[in-house]
Amino acid sequence: MQSREMQLKRRPVGMPVAEDFALVTADLPPPSPGEVQVRNLWMAVDPAMRGRMSDAKSYVPPFALDAAMEGPAIGEVVASADPEFAPGDLVFSRLGWREAFNAPARALRHRDRTRLPPQAYLGFAGSTGLTAYAGLLRIAQLREGDVVFVSAASGAVGSIACQIARIKGCKVIGSAGGPRKKAFLEEVIGVDAAIDYKAEPNLTKALAREVKAIGASGIDVNFENVGGDHLQAALALANPRARFAICGMISQYNVTEPSSAPRNLTMLMTKSIRMEGYIVLDHMDLEPQFLADMIAWHDAYLIRQAETVHEGIERSLDALWGLFSGDNLGRTLVRLG
Amino acid sequence: MQSREMQLKRRPVGMPVAEDFALVTADLPPPSPGEVQVRNLWMAVDPAMRGRMSDAKSYVPPFALDAAMEGPAIGEVVASADPEFAPGDLVFSRLGWREAFNAPARALRHRDRTRLPPQAYLGFAGSTGLTAYAGLLRIAQLREGDVVFVSAASGAVGSIACQIARIKGCKVIGSAGGPRKKAFLEEVIGVDAAIDYKAEPNLTKALAREVKAIGASGIDVNFENVGGDHLQAALALANPRARFAICGMISQYNVTEPSSAPRNLTMLMTKSIRMEGYIVLDHMDLEPQFLADMIAWHDAYLIRQAETVHEGIERSLDALWGLFSGDNLGRTLVRLG
Repeated sequence: MQSREMQLKRRPVGMPVAEDFALVTADLPPPSPGEVQVRNLWMAVDPAMRGRMSDAKSYVPPFALDAAMEGPAIGEVVASADPEFAPGDLVFSRLGWREAFNAPARALRHRDRTRLPPQAYLGFAGSTGLTAYAGLLRIAQLREGDVVFVSAASGAVGSIACQIARIKGCKVIGSAGGPRKKAFLEEVIGVDAAIDYKAEPNLTKALAREVKAIGASGIDVNFENVGGDHLQAALALANPRARFAICGMISQYNVTEPSSAPRNLTMLMTKSIRMEGYIVLDHMDLEPQFLADMIAWHDAYLIRQAETVHEGIERSLDALWGLFSGDNLGRTLVRLG
Repeated sequence: MQSREMQLKRRPVGMPVAEDFALVTADLPPPSPGEVQVRNLWMAVDPAMRGRMSDAKSYVPPFALDAAMEGPAIGEVVASADPEFAPGDLVFSRLGWREAFNAPARALRHRDRTRLPPQAYLGFAGSTGLTAYAGLLRIAQLREGDVVFVSAASGAVGSIACQIARIKGCKVIGSAGGPRKKAFLEEVIGVDAAIDYKAEPNLTKALAREVKAIGASGIDVNFENVGGDHLQAALALANPRARFAICGMISQYNVTEPSSAPRNLTMLMTKSIRMEGYIVLDHMDLEPQFLADMIAWHDAYLIRQAETVHEGIERSLDALWGLFSGDNLGRTLVRLG
């Protein structure tokens, strides 16, 4: 069996270019004892992969040169030399960026193919979904009737956060950049109010306007993906005892001089605000309840996968460019099989 | 009976001056039914009083002109026309800035004069003590062995926070401005390490040095009174899952342009930090346990009142100037009786 895989050939400087990568065809022998052979159906592309292309010190190791990159993938067992897996099983792995692979059984996780479409396990039923779920329900202690502000609301995590908040009986104000994303929030995701932050000279005034428009006095929960001006607006409009789940601050990652916003952190005291950062790996204990909820919500047509799909391993770099250009809506996926 | 009281005569612009106030002598009739006559023993002066001298909108009403100002006081019942109070009782009230007063019984709270010196109820056993106690034990969830960073550590709240943290088996690094306050922290309060922030060109480097000096990897708890550069240093040196109790941000209160620090809020995510503002009024349910703990710690010589005392109502304005000039250590008190 053969597999095409996307290898990193050199470490990008600034925005990655095509010459940093190569599509290579590899031969796959039958699996050795304890190994499983998997054909990938879908892989996901996310911004954290850019970090692993560099060899700067981080809490995850960099991608090796001249080897296939890695990332979340969902696939089907083709052949198995391990008693826990059988041909036809649906499995999750971190071995994306390749069409097929052999791996030790411990690198795989079973997923129930009868309940959800396979790519849901890379989206609303995967770690992006769990990130939204843990942030809202555990970190922000979401309650029915809360007014929730979600930044980067059209993104992989934000689009799920908006839907979970609505399912839980909350009002949702989503922010995203550009009229296309704003329309996506209003028409596909279904928020109570949407803000195109690129069209707003003053984000705090824009949020105040939308809070008023939905008949609220302020926001009770902030699901923060952006930071900077978004965080400043959320602090300014926060109700007393508001809870902020700090999921990301993408506005701060690629700047040489970090933003001077927010300049209103004294609101933390005057409004008794709680602000908490988290990483999803610390909340894996929620996974069983999370999966049960997601399957139930999916069955009731309450949650939908927001995704941008690219076709084939040969288009996987387009998925990457789309991520950085801001063209992608929801989760960025590549269909491999 | 006569009482001298300090009245506000006009609203100060910038730093208050003597001409904004007048010491006035008032006649006190015997208490009417339901009233109690109290002779004040001590009053406290705190920075929040400056806010009430202005008539800007706030969550507490401004002081009236041509009337005695208000503030925490501890006094002794002289005469009572209410069954709940008897001459000789020790009582807490918000009716400071006067030598004696008549007030309805509901404006008074009994305090146990057999267990603590009267002025302790304006300090470690009063709302400043409860602010430190609630911030460390409830908001920051202090645990034995934590490394705790306290800013404004020589102040009314900070000096108690340092002592509570030590009692709870934590290591404490305190920051204060100037060699006199640093020595006070080291010799009177008894911290593990003290920083004179005015002598440090880079507070983050100074905190890193002291963390290392006490054999720690970082800080687990930040008790924040200052904000700005202090908060930035605390974020930079925080251990994973550190808890920040945001009690105050005094560096931000009197500036026209809020500080651009901290510029490292992304640490909230990368270290899963929780940062929570609070006001002591939301934590009054802790008072019985707090008072029991404080009395036990006082009896065991584990806690001491850090205070700067001025003598007599005629010196009460000196207490106020000392507060703003930074001359005062610990709680600022005026002895009235």
